[in-house]
Amino acid sequence: MNYDEFFRAELQSLADEGNYRHFAELERRQGDFPRARHHRPDGTKEVTVWCSNDYLGMGQHPAVLSAMHEAIDRCGAGAGGTRNISGTTHDHVMLEQELADLHHKPAALLFTSGYVSNWAAITTLASRLPGCVVLSDAGNHASMIEGIRHSRAEKIIFKHNDPQDLERCLAQIDPKRPKIVAFESVYSMDGDIAPIAKICDVAEKYGAMTYLDEVHAVGLYGLRGGGIAEREGLMDRITLIEGTLGKAFGVVGGYIAASTELCDFVRSFASGFIFTTALPPACAAAARASIQHLKQSNSERERHQNRVAAVRRQLDIMGVPHLKNDSHIVPVMVGNPVKCKMISDRLLQDYGIYVQPINYPTVPKGTERLRITPSPVHSDEDIRYLMESLGAIWSECALARGVAAA
Amino acid sequence: MNYDEFFRAELQSLADEGNYRHFAELERRQGDFPRARHHRPDGTKEVTVWCSNDYLGMGQHPAVLSAMHEAIDRCGAGAGGTRNISGTTHDHVMLEQELADLHHKPAALLFTSGYVSNWAAITTLASRLPGCVVLSDAGNHASMIEGIRHSRAEKIIFKHNDPQDLERCLAQIDPKRPKIVAFESVYSMDGDIAPIAKICDVAEKYGAMTYLDEVHAVGLYGLRGGGIAEREGLMDRITLIEGTLGKAFGVVGGYIAASTELCDFVRSFASGFIFTTALPPACAAAARASIQHLKQSNSERERHQNRVAAVRRQLDIMGVPHLKNDSHIVPVMVGNPVKCKMISDRLLQDYGIYVQPINYPTVPKGTERLRITPSPVHSDEDIRYLMESLGAIWSECALARGVAAA
Ligand SMILES: Cc1ncc(COP(=O)(O)O)c(C=O)c1O
Ligand SMILES: Cc1ncc(COP(=O)(O)O)c(C=O)c1O
Repeated sequence: MNYDEFFRAELQSLADEGNYRHFAELERRQGDFPRARHHRPDGTKEVTVWCSNDYLGMGQHPAVLSAMHEAIDRCGAGAGGTRNISGTTHDHVMLEQELADLHHKPAALLFTSGYVSNWAAITTLASRLPGCVVLSDAGNHASMIEGIRHSRAEKIIFKHNDPQDLERCLAQIDPKRPKIVAFESVYSMDGDIAPIAKICDVAEKYGAMTYLDEVHAVGLYGLRGGGIAEREGLMDRITLIEGTLGKAFGVVGGYIAASTELCDFVRSFASGFIFTTALPPACAAAARASIQHLKQSNSERERHQNRVAAVRRQLDIMGVPHLKNDSHIVPVMVGNPVKCKMISDRLLQDYGIYVQPINYPTVPKGTERLRITPSPVHSDEDIRYLMESLGAIWSECALARGVAAA
Repeated sequence: MNYDEFFRAELQSLADEGNYRHFAELERRQGDFPRARHHRPDGTKEVTVWCSNDYLGMGQHPAVLSAMHEAIDRCGAGAGGTRNISGTTHDHVMLEQELADLHHKPAALLFTSGYVSNWAAITTLASRLPGCVVLSDAGNHASMIEGIRHSRAEKIIFKHNDPQDLERCLAQIDPKRPKIVAFESVYSMDGDIAPIAKICDVAEKYGAMTYLDEVHAVGLYGLRGGGIAEREGLMDRITLIEGTLGKAFGVVGGYIAASTELCDFVRSFASGFIFTTALPPACAAAARASIQHLKQSNSERERHQNRVAAVRRQLDIMGVPHLKNDSHIVPVMVGNPVKCKMISDRLLQDYGIYVQPINYPTVPKGTERLRITPSPVHSDEDIRYLMESLGAIWSECALARGVAAA
């Protein structure tokens, strides 16, 4: 078999569908974010980033950067080992305590990413609890889906954000079997929010564990940034809260927060936790500084919501179709990968605005979109210019106006 | 079901076998490594680390640290997005070019860790090449094993480092099926080295791709630190070389280097690459500085080998049993988890020497060991003191002396 020929043909099919991905090469400008340099074959150009998941701009917060610099000077670059073999540093331990406190849980466990935390924790729980069934929301993130798949446990998909359908599924399962209800608080691509209390009601009734991915909510919601479950006073009803340090907290890494026994169990048995180099101490220190700051400061969250509301209002005025939701994610629906990329290319080249087109496999085919993420670092002038630019492209290309279906 | 009770019982079984893991909480001292602070309930104590995978001490190299500081000042902390959605920075692209050059391959692809690079690349290749069979060395690392398992491709295990057995396996497979031969250059726990040329001979004869994990060799072997395949002039015969940035390079991250088509294929289809926040630009910049330094400097590699030889010589003189091999890894064999931990605890508490006991599941039960990793930062005095301490414990506890079987 000619392997490269096979790869080439598969890549060609992607391209034919309009789903081949071109990565924009950026250089974030610390202190001046959302401004970034866009590197292109013909040189660099200044752009404004409108699609970052550094939702609050914490990636350039002075407290975060100085914690990172300080830890490098104190400990060096890498951790130098897996957590078990010389890679557990004081910074890792302190961060895990901070995370446990953030979610009011007895313990927390750090992973190299949110993806790995979901994959490793779900794989371990679902494969090692004898006869386990996983009830998975239909909208769940790839990292959970792969974790369930890898565990080879029985999986039942319930309708997205539908506690009644969840109950219908749970009622059919032998009460003695261990069960995990896996779902997200804020869904990253549509921005809709789960009915957490109702899901907990059903899960508790049937003796199921609740596994909640708060990746797009931690730092952003709740009085201390504990996420939607904190905002709604539900943290103690969730068995396991999973989050990331790479989005609102502005650094990198992932974690779970849960009972001491659960965290120790995953620590002791999860391949994806055990057999990998620990995060650099400097990343742990930076993430901890970010969490600490957002625990006691609400101003970033307030301005964030203010910016989101302003963008939505302007889009409504202009009739640019976007999905309504109760979160900070503003999906401008296009519904076609080629058109979506065309708009994104025009924005980048002609207006210096960077919004990556979102296509399959990140969203289902036919729901391609521009996913706009306003942040506290976007000024009124940034918003005005974004609207002017979108308006010009919408008119020029005779794109549909009106409100998108939710 | 009472979930926490189940977890508690499983943890108790681990403890009963002597396999429950206690992580030592360290604080590396930049500029003074292998010295570190050991944090204990009763305070901190200075220790010398003898089990780090920061094999060359690059985690405190001035060029690495200044690249990391500089990138933080320039770009901030995190990447702020997945590679596709605003997370590809100039530093990532430059690092990938550096890695491709290191291995003389047309392309390279960066992942958040070596674990994820193996898991994601093997899963993607083995699940998407129609009818693929993976031939896996019996000693392969967990990250490859989990990748193969996740792909659900057919897997055939060949005897460790045995090209004849590999040939026997390959000869039975339909010649038209795609095949991947997956193996490592330096095996991390026994330190033995694969017969790469012979494995390539067999793989080529049967039209199989070769997938080589050089995680414990990159930076350490070859004139430019390209690994064992570079040292033996075999890089062009390997289809895909996988490595880490978290061990000899002293930072964090993983990668593959291969043809443009192969890297683009994995980039386009691997869930573990697509759906996760990119590494912080500062980590990419630091790793690149480390690779660049080790491409043109041999002194670290020479002193590394010198230290390894000195430790081996002294162990031989003292009759402390250790596995013979041709690499830099010095496994002192104990063969019992409780005894292994006891020796390690004594070294730490009474002598201020940190060597983590290695037990199941990292090594098979019955082969528990102290895995000593000498590095250029260990002085003659460090070696002398290690020997004196080991000698005292060996005598006191009446442990066996002599040469361990290879
Ligand atoms: C819902 C959800 N969970 C988990 C992840 C993975 O987190 P991380 O980027 O830290 O790997 C993501 C996105 O990347 C996500 O959208
Ligand atoms: C052979 C081998 N491959 C891959 C890995 C994973 O690399 P990383 O630590 O960068 O995740 C390790 C160890 O951690 C290893 O020993």
